Amino acid sequence: MKYPLGFFSFGKNIGIKDTSLDFAVIYSDVRCHAAAVFTRNNFPGAPIYVGRDHIQDGFLQAIVINSKNSNVATGEKGIQDSYQICESLAKSLQIKKEDILPSSTGVIGVPLPIEKILNACASAKENLKPGNLDEVAEAIMTTDTKKKISYRTINHNGNEGVMFGIAKGAGMIEPNMATMLSYILCDYLPESKDLKGILKRVVDQTYNCITIDSDTSTSDTVVLMCSGKLGTIPDGLFESNLKEIATELSKKIARDGEGASKLIELTVKHGRDESQVTKIGKSILNSPLVKTAIYGGDPNWGRFIMAIGKVFDEPIPYENLEIQLGGISVKGADHETKSKLAEYLKSNEEIYILVKLNTGKFEKTFWSCDFTEGYIQENAYYTT
Amino acid sequence: MKYPLGFFSFGKNIGIKDTSLDFAVIYSDVRCHAAAVFTRNNFPGAPIYVGRDHIQDGFLQAIVINSKNSNVATGEKGIQDSYQICESLAKSLQIKKEDILPSSTGVIGVPLPIEKILNACASAKENLKPGNLDEVAEAIMTTDTKKKISYRTINHNGNEGVMFGIAKGAGMIEPNMATMLSYILCDYLPESKDLKGILKRVVDQTYNCITIDSDTSTSDTVVLMCSGKLGTIPDGLFESNLKEIATELSKKIARDGEGASKLIELTVKHGRDESQVTKIGKSILNSPLVKTAIYGGDPNWGRFIMAIGKVFDEPIPYENLEIQLGGISVKGADHETKSKLAEYLKSNEEIYILVKLNTGKFEKTFWSCDFTEGYIQENAYYTT
Repeated sequence: MKYPLGFFSFGKNIGIKDTSLDFAVIYSDVRCHAAAVFTRNNFPGAPIYVGRDHIQDGFLQAIVINSKNSNVATGEKGIQDSYQICESLAKSLQIKKEDILPSSTGVIGVPLPIEKILNACASAKENLKPGNLDEVAEAIMTTDTKKKISYRTINHNGNEGVMFGIAKGAGMIEPNMATMLSYILCDYLPESKDLKGILKRVVDQTYNCITIDSDTSTSDTVVLMCSGKLGTIPDGLFESNLKEIATELSKKIARDGEGASKLIELTVKHGRDESQVTKIGKSILNSPLVKTAIYGGDPNWGRFIMAIGKVFDEPIPYENLEIQLGGISVKGADHETKSKLAEYLKSNEEIYILVKLNTGKFEKTFWSCDFTEGYIQENAYYTT
Repeated sequence: MKYPLGFFSFGKNIGIKDTSLDFAVIYSDVRCHAAAVFTRNNFPGAPIYVGRDHIQDGFLQAIVINSKNSNVATGEKGIQDSYQICESLAKSLQIKKEDILPSSTGVIGVPLPIEKILNACASAKENLKPGNLDEVAEAIMTTDTKKKISYRTINHNGNEGVMFGIAKGAGMIEPNMATMLSYILCDYLPESKDLKGILKRVVDQTYNCITIDSDTSTSDTVVLMCSGKLGTIPDGLFESNLKEIATELSKKIARDGEGASKLIELTVKHGRDESQVTKIGKSILNSPLVKTAIYGGDPNWGRFIMAIGKVFDEPIPYENLEIQLGGISVKGADHETKSKLAEYLKSNEEIYILVKLNTGKFEKTFWSCDFTEGYIQENAYYTT
């Protein structure tokens, strides 16, 4: 595993809920150009308020994250807690508190165990190790079953730089303008230094195209930090690598949705525009009936028709509509075709769906997972 | 059980899928004033096209229904089939084919077994029995576990009239402008004869306030038929009885949602207007995380906050927001309150939720059910 230059980090257990890793710090030895996008939920967590405040000037030097408690719906005290965490960490790392972005993920509505976290901040410096970001990827997990890491080496003018991304997902996932928690670090800087513009474009085509359960979290955050230690690279090269990493992390989040047994990749093609394609894509991938049929290997293609038809303000001519599962057309499928469709659904862990609207030229890809008893079981007893 | 005057009906098995009742006819011995509302899904079933055509003049004399096959996504042939069914039944009953409304419910995308249905139409007259509507209520069931019937006797000017409603629901239920199948018959007429206006007002406050799984069916239909055999009654008396019946049937549909173990009744109060209250009410009752928590008796109240907050275009001031479960306030609940909430959720089959937005004076009630493994199991293998 290769890490970008100048980044140090650690993950550890501080006993927030159980004995798994639940606290992490990422630190750069130089101040970084940075950008972030956050949840559009109207009740964002306390760290989101503080993060929005601290990212304003476009610079960050550290990120501090706890899992198992989201510090959401905790009122004024929750926001004070988040500011205090930054203050304590700034002291330990000897950097400006405004250069720290805080994140919390986990249960909503429970006050943070603030003493435990402040203690961990105070001793942060001695725990830092070069790179080490896979430990952070583990520490930010909640109901995730796998660490989510994606990185690329980028060769430019004789240098080998690294862009490194981590993420967490699992449940309460239909990001809008952002995703759960994801951090992407790089030792290059794009020539334009327009991190915000590049990040927003990429997020709209990756994290914002996944849905696990249609529930938009109060904590969604994506952060991009560039040390620029290796200088600048062309925007196109930067953005294409960022998009690859964001796509890979988005697919990992969808594949590891709570209770999921399959990744679903849906491409909606030949649509009028982004709005039409997105409404129909999301309607299909948020339909419990579509997702249970894919889980069970039931070639019940009528449910796709229903899901497209229930987007009331986007009527699609039925005659021209095409739907394929694994390359097999489904409309009016006879007995033999249905057997093939069932076979395809049952024997694959990655299900590819193609919908052609034939109303224009716009195209977009979306990701989700199937809907199983595991989702119900995990969420029926989450806090008890 | 009391029936409205002049209505005859039957339900029988004609072998569409298995040996349960799957075919029904309702007939009035006089032509009835009638109104109907249908699904807003952009791919409505063939019977919806024919029903819209036949209801145009505001009169009906019979309804013909099959279950186990919805005749949706069956193209021009499906529409011809529906017209042919009306023709065959009209011959048997010696009425106009334009006075018959056809309905079909069941799997999507499979051609109707038209010969079986035409045979049943041809022999319909001899099968009719006075009243007998509970047999129809059984014949229209698909994954419903219970017949759904609600009726009221209405005393006016020395007469005792009857308003009688039946419905089916179970899955693919978030009606919009209509519900699955529901038929309401009455021997009175409202004085204004404005069946359409009255039905629309009532539907908006009843069937359109339920959601089981956020999936809007392609077959939703509510029909109101009034023989007027007992003359007219004041609109207010008519509408209040209709609303009572529609509310009762809506609650029965929600309670009997696929896999459901609990009925959820949510009242959203002190909202700005219908649009704000409805968006927030539906967001809460369509949230898989809210519905799994209610299933498991988990007092995870943060999920209500999330569900209200994800209605991006309706930000609600957090400070003034109130949420109660069974009369217990949840915001910032301490350990003892959480135990009480868990106890309330676990020991009741009807869960009452009150949300006060404190943004105005509008109020509306919504119904849904919890989300269980049973929903997944029923829908993973529906056609296989």
